[in-house]
Amino acid sequence: MAELVFLPFEKSVETDGSKSLLELAREAGIPLQATCGGKKICGKCRVFVESSDGPLAPPSDREREVLGGDTERGCRLACETSLAHGAVVHIPEESLIRPQVILTSDTENPYPVRLNPGIGLYYVEVPPPALDSVVADRERLVLALKQAYEIDDPVFDPFVLRRLPRALRSDRKGITAAIREGGEIVDLYPGREERLFGIAFDLGTTTVVAYLLDLLTGEKLSVKAAMNPQIEVGDDVVTRISFCQERSGGLEELRTKIVRCLNSLIREASAEAEIDPDQILEAILVGNTAMHHLFMGLDPRYLAMAPYPPVLQEAQDFKARDLGLGIGSSAYVHLPPVKAGFVGSDTVACILATGLHRSTVPTLLIDLGTNGEIVFGNRDRMLCCSTAAGPAFEGGHIRWGMRAAAGAMERVKIDPGTIDVSWKTIYDQLPAGLCGSGIISAVAEMIRSGIILARGDFSEEIRSPRMREGEDGLEFVLVQASESSTSQDIVITRKDVAELQMAKSAVSAGAMLLMERFGSDGAGRILLAGAGGNYIDPLDACTIDLFPGCLTSEVKGVGNAAGHGACLALLDRDKREEAGRIAAQMEYEELAATARFQELFVTGMFFPAARDYEDEF
Amino acid sequence: MAELVFLPFEKSVETDGSKSLLELAREAGIPLQATCGGKKICGKCRVFVESSDGPLAPPSDREREVLGGDTERGCRLACETSLAHGAVVHIPEESLIRPQVILTSDTENPYPVRLNPGIGLYYVEVPPPALDSVVADRERLVLALKQAYEIDDPVFDPFVLRRLPRALRSDRKGITAAIREGGEIVDLYPGREERLFGIAFDLGTTTVVAYLLDLLTGEKLSVKAAMNPQIEVGDDVVTRISFCQERSGGLEELRTKIVRCLNSLIREASAEAEIDPDQILEAILVGNTAMHHLFMGLDPRYLAMAPYPPVLQEAQDFKARDLGLGIGSSAYVHLPPVKAGFVGSDTVACILATGLHRSTVPTLLIDLGTNGEIVFGNRDRMLCCSTAAGPAFEGGHIRWGMRAAAGAMERVKIDPGTIDVSWKTIYDQLPAGLCGSGIISAVAEMIRSGIILARGDFSEEIRSPRMREGEDGLEFVLVQASESSTSQDIVITRKDVAELQMAKSAVSAGAMLLMERFGSDGAGRILLAGAGGNYIDPLDACTIDLFPGCLTSEVKGVGNAAGHGACLALLDRDKREEAGRIAAQMEYEELAATARFQELFVTGMFFPAARDYEDEF
Repeated sequence: MAELVFLPFEKSVETDGSKSLLELAREAGIPLQATCGGKKICGKCRVFVESSDGPLAPPSDREREVLGGDTERGCRLACETSLAHGAVVHIPEESLIRPQVILTSDTENPYPVRLNPGIGLYYVEVPPPALDSVVADRERLVLALKQAYEIDDPVFDPFVLRRLPRALRSDRKGITAAIREGGEIVDLYPGREERLFGIAFDLGTTTVVAYLLDLLTGEKLSVKAAMNPQIEVGDDVVTRISFCQERSGGLEELRTKIVRCLNSLIREASAEAEIDPDQILEAILVGNTAMHHLFMGLDPRYLAMAPYPPVLQEAQDFKARDLGLGIGSSAYVHLPPVKAGFVGSDTVACILATGLHRSTVPTLLIDLGTNGEIVFGNRDRMLCCSTAAGPAFEGGHIRWGMRAAAGAMERVKIDPGTIDVSWKTIYDQLPAGLCGSGIISAVAEMIRSGIILARGDFSEEIRSPRMREGEDGLEFVLVQASESSTSQDIVITRKDVAELQMAKSAVSAGAMLLMERFGSDGAGRILLAGAGGNYIDPLDACTIDLFPGCLTSEVKGVGNAAGHGACLALLDRDKREEAGRIAAQMEYEELAATARFQELFVTGMFFPAARDYEDEF
Repeated sequence: MAELVFLPFEKSVETDGSKSLLELAREAGIPLQATCGGKKICGKCRVFVESSDGPLAPPSDREREVLGGDTERGCRLACETSLAHGAVVHIPEESLIRPQVILTSDTENPYPVRLNPGIGLYYVEVPPPALDSVVADRERLVLALKQAYEIDDPVFDPFVLRRLPRALRSDRKGITAAIREGGEIVDLYPGREERLFGIAFDLGTTTVVAYLLDLLTGEKLSVKAAMNPQIEVGDDVVTRISFCQERSGGLEELRTKIVRCLNSLIREASAEAEIDPDQILEAILVGNTAMHHLFMGLDPRYLAMAPYPPVLQEAQDFKARDLGLGIGSSAYVHLPPVKAGFVGSDTVACILATGLHRSTVPTLLIDLGTNGEIVFGNRDRMLCCSTAAGPAFEGGHIRWGMRAAAGAMERVKIDPGTIDVSWKTIYDQLPAGLCGSGIISAVAEMIRSGIILARGDFSEEIRSPRMREGEDGLEFVLVQASESSTSQDIVITRKDVAELQMAKSAVSAGAMLLMERFGSDGAGRILLAGAGGNYIDPLDACTIDLFPGCLTSEVKGVGNAAGHGACLALLDRDKREEAGRIAAQMEYEELAATARFQELFVTGMFFPAARDYEDEF
C-alpha cells in the first residue's frame, strides 16, 4: 500500500492500484464530479498528478481525446487513472460538485388552497376500566370515539397501540386521536392536541426539496433543500439505472442514500419549526419515475428498456416507516401516480399546481430538469412526452458548463458593435463557468450579435480577438483568464453550440409533436417549470427557438410547480383524487416510437431567429 | 477487578463487587435459576463459594432463613451475594435451569379441520407491455387478476412490489399471486406455485411451541419447542411485569427476547420442513394476556393493577414484520382475542380446540400452566376466571420442586404397609427433584397412605425412618441421598404440602365459584389442558381434591389444546370468527373482587379424600 494525498484537501488515502483516483477520492469524502458516474464519458473528473513516487501509465486514448494538451500539464481523468505508487494529486475547484442554487419558491397559485388534509383530530374522554366489567384500553377508546363522533371500528397499528396505555393515563384530561381518512388512528396524544403537521417532498434527479406544512393552517413552516446524494454515482437518471443493473446491491445503495437525505431534510425542517419529526403525520413525495422507483426500492432497470414500463403507475399509500422515513411511526407517505417511465408524478404535480387541466387556453408546460417533460393541452385533453434533452440545460456536456452554483454565469450580454461581453454570475462571484440559463443566454446573445449562424456555425465575418481557433475548431472567448475564478479563459465552442442545438431541438420537436397530435398550431401560453425553466430569460428562449412559435409575452416561469403541487395534495386530500384523474386523462406519446419526432428534431436544430438577426448585419 | 471462576463451567468473569453472583453468572451465559427474577424470594439460585481470596460478608438474614444450615458449607444465594475478591464458585446442578419436557402433542380433535386458510394462490399470465400503450407491471397484473378471477383492486405493499418486476420476467411462464382474504397480495412467485405455509405459536410463560403447517393439505410439517427465554428475568408473569415497570427498556428487552426465540423456532421448523422461512405467509400466536402484550410490545404494567385491564381485547392482524417475525416479508400475524388481564387468547384457543363452546354437557376446562385459567360452561353459557395458583404445580416454592426436566420425579408410589417409596422419573434418570405431577402424586400417595391428614399435617402415628424432623418441621424422605442425583435426600416438607394446598384450593375454589354462578352442581366432564394438566394422574388429582366433586372417569387430559386451537385457526379462517364469538360469549369473573371466592378458598384447603383414607387406618 502506498500513500496518496489529495490537495487542496490534504487528505491521505492508501492505494494499491486496484481503485481509480475517482473511487479513492469518493471514499475520502471529496465531492469530485463525475456526471457520467465514472463511465469515462463526461470528462468532468479532471485532476492533476503533481508528483508521483513511480512511473505513470501514459494517458489513455480517451484521456487524450477529452483532455487534449492538458495531459502534458499532468492533467488526468480520475476515473481512468489508478496509481500503485505514492503520489500527490491536485483536484481543481471546477472538478468539484458545488452546492447548487435550488429553486424552492412557489409558483403563483391559480386556485385557493382548501384545507382538507384527510387527517382529523378527535378529542374524547375515556372512562377508566370498571372492576365489575373490565373493558380493555383499546375497546374503551373505540367506544368513546363511536359515541362522540360515530367513528366505526378504527384501525390501530402496533406502534399506536404501544402508546395507548400511557396516553390514557397521563395527568392530562382526555385523549386526542389523529384519525386518517379511511379510519386508521395514526397517532394518539394525551389531553387535547390541536396541531397537525405534514411534509411534502419534490425528489428531483439533482435536487431534493422538503416543505414542512402546518396541515391545519396551511402555513409553510420550513423549506429545506439538498442535492440528491445519488449524484455521486452519476448525474442523470440513466447512469443511476445502470448502477442498479451493474452493481449488486446497487438499488439498495441508492435507496438508502435518498432515504438518508430525506430524513436529514425532515430533521432540519423539524428543527426549524421547533417540532419533533414524530409529530409529522403525513408525507407526500413526487418525483420523476426513476426517482420514485429508487425511493420505493423498485428495480428501475426496465425503465431503460423499450417499451420503458414503470413497475407501477397508480397512486400509493404506504406506511412511512416501511420506506424508512423518520416521521410519525404510524404515519403514511402518499405517492401520487406516475404516467410513464419518463413522465413521473412530478409532472402530474406540475399540472395540478398550474391548473393546466382546468385551463380553457391550450397550454404548453415544459419542465426543464435533467429530463425535459412536456405537456400540451387544456381541460379537454392533455398530451405528454419526455425528451432526452441531455444535460446541456444543466451545464452538462458543455466545455465550461457547470451547475447553477456560486460563480456560474447566468446572464451574458454581448455588444453587437464592439463584441464586448458582460455577464451576471450567481452570488456575483468571479465567473467559473456557465449554468444552463447562462449557456442559453450566451448563445442567444451570440445569435443576436451575428456570431452564430442559422446552422450553429460561427460566422467567419466576425473580426474580434475573442474569436479564435481552439481544440474543437472555432471558439468564442466569453471571459478572459484574468477575469475568471479558474484563471483560464471561459469559452463557448462550436461543439457546445451543437450540444445546445440538440437539447433545444429535442424539446421543441417534442412540443411540436404534441401540438400536432392535439391539432393545434400554437400554445396560448407557455409555462416553464423547474429550476432551469425558472431562470431562463423568455427572450433568450425565443431567440434559440426553444419553443415552437413562441412569443415572448406568452412565456411564464412557474417556479417549482412540482413541489407546489405536492404541497397542494398534502393540504387537500381531494387534490389526490384530482391528480389521479389528471394521470388517467394524460395521453402519453412515446417519442422513441415516432418517426415524425425524428423529422421535427432534425428541422428543429436550426436557429430561425438567427436568420433575422443575420439580415441586420 | 478480580477474577471469579464458575464451576463446573470453568467460566471466568471479572468482578468488582458491584454485581451479584446471579447477575455475573447470567452475563457469563450460565442458566442459573431464579424463579423470582432475582428478588431474593425463591431461594433457587443456590451456589457454593468454594474458595475466596478475601473475606466473605456473613450470610444475610434472608440467606439464613432460606438456606438454613447449608450456609455453613459455603452455600449462598447468588442474588444476595457480591464478591469484590477473586473466588471460585460452584453452581450445583439443581440450581440450573434445565430444558423442560414440553407438551407438543395434539389433543384428539373433536371436529374435522376444514382447510380454509384465507389465502388463495392465483395463477395468471400477464402480457408484456406494449409500446403503443405502456401499462405498468402492477397495473397489468391487476388487470389479469380481474379478468381471470374477478379480483378487484388488490393491495400491494412495498415489499411485494419490489418482487414484482423480476417475478414477471422470469423464464417461467406466468406468475402466481398469494392473495389474502381482504384482497392483499402477500407474495408473488414466478410461474405456477402450489404450496402455502403457515405457522402457529403457543406462547406460554414457560414454554413456546411452534407448529409449521402446510396450509393446503393441513399437514403438520414440523413442531418445535423452546423455553421462553424471558424466564431469565423471572419465572412468572408478575415478575416479568415488574421487570418492565422497574427497568428502563425492560419491556423492549423482554419483547426482543421472545421475538428472537420465535424466530429461532421459525428457522428450526423451516429447516426441518426444507422450506425457506420467507415462504411462510401467515402466522398465528396465542398466549396468556401478559405474553400476548409482551410479544406486541404493549406495556403490561396495568395487567398487574386492579382492575387489571388489558391494552386490547379484540383479535388483531398485523404485518409480521412490524412485530419482528422473520417470515414472509409481507405476511400477517393473527392474534386471537384475549378475554381479560389473566385470561388470554390461549384459553380462547383451548375452548376452540376442545369444542367446549359447542358442548351440551356442562364442562370444566382447567389450564394448569403458570397461572390456572378455568372455564366452566356449555354451548349456552361460558364462565371463566384465572386463579393465582402460584408456581407449585410447576415445582415452584417447593423445597425439591423442579421443572418437568430430565430426572424430575413425575409419579410416586408409597406402599401403605411398609411406607416404602418407588418412583418414575422423566427419562428414567436418577431423581433430582419433583415436577408438578410428581408433587401431586407424592402428596396424593401420602394422603392415601395416611401420612398426610385432612388439614395437611403429617400424621404422628406413622412410624418410619422416612419421617423426620427437618428445618421446617416434620418432613418425609422420598429418596435417600444415595439414590438421588444430587447426593442429598429428596423430601416433602409440611411447608411443601401447605404450598400445594394453597395452589389446589385456588383452582378448586375458582372452579366451584364458576359452577355456583352457572347454577350447576357438577361438571359433566373435566378437561385438563396444558403440560401440567396432561401429566397429572386423574386419580391423584381427585385424591388431593383439585377439582370440586370430581369422579376419576370424568377427567380427561386434552394436551396442548391452546396450540391445537391456534393450528385450527391457522388452517380455517372461519375459526377466527368463531374465536371472536367465544371471547365475546365468555363471562369473566374477577376473583379478587369476590368474597365468595375467599370462602371457597379457605374451605378448599382441606384434603377431603384424606379423611376417607384415615378411616381405613
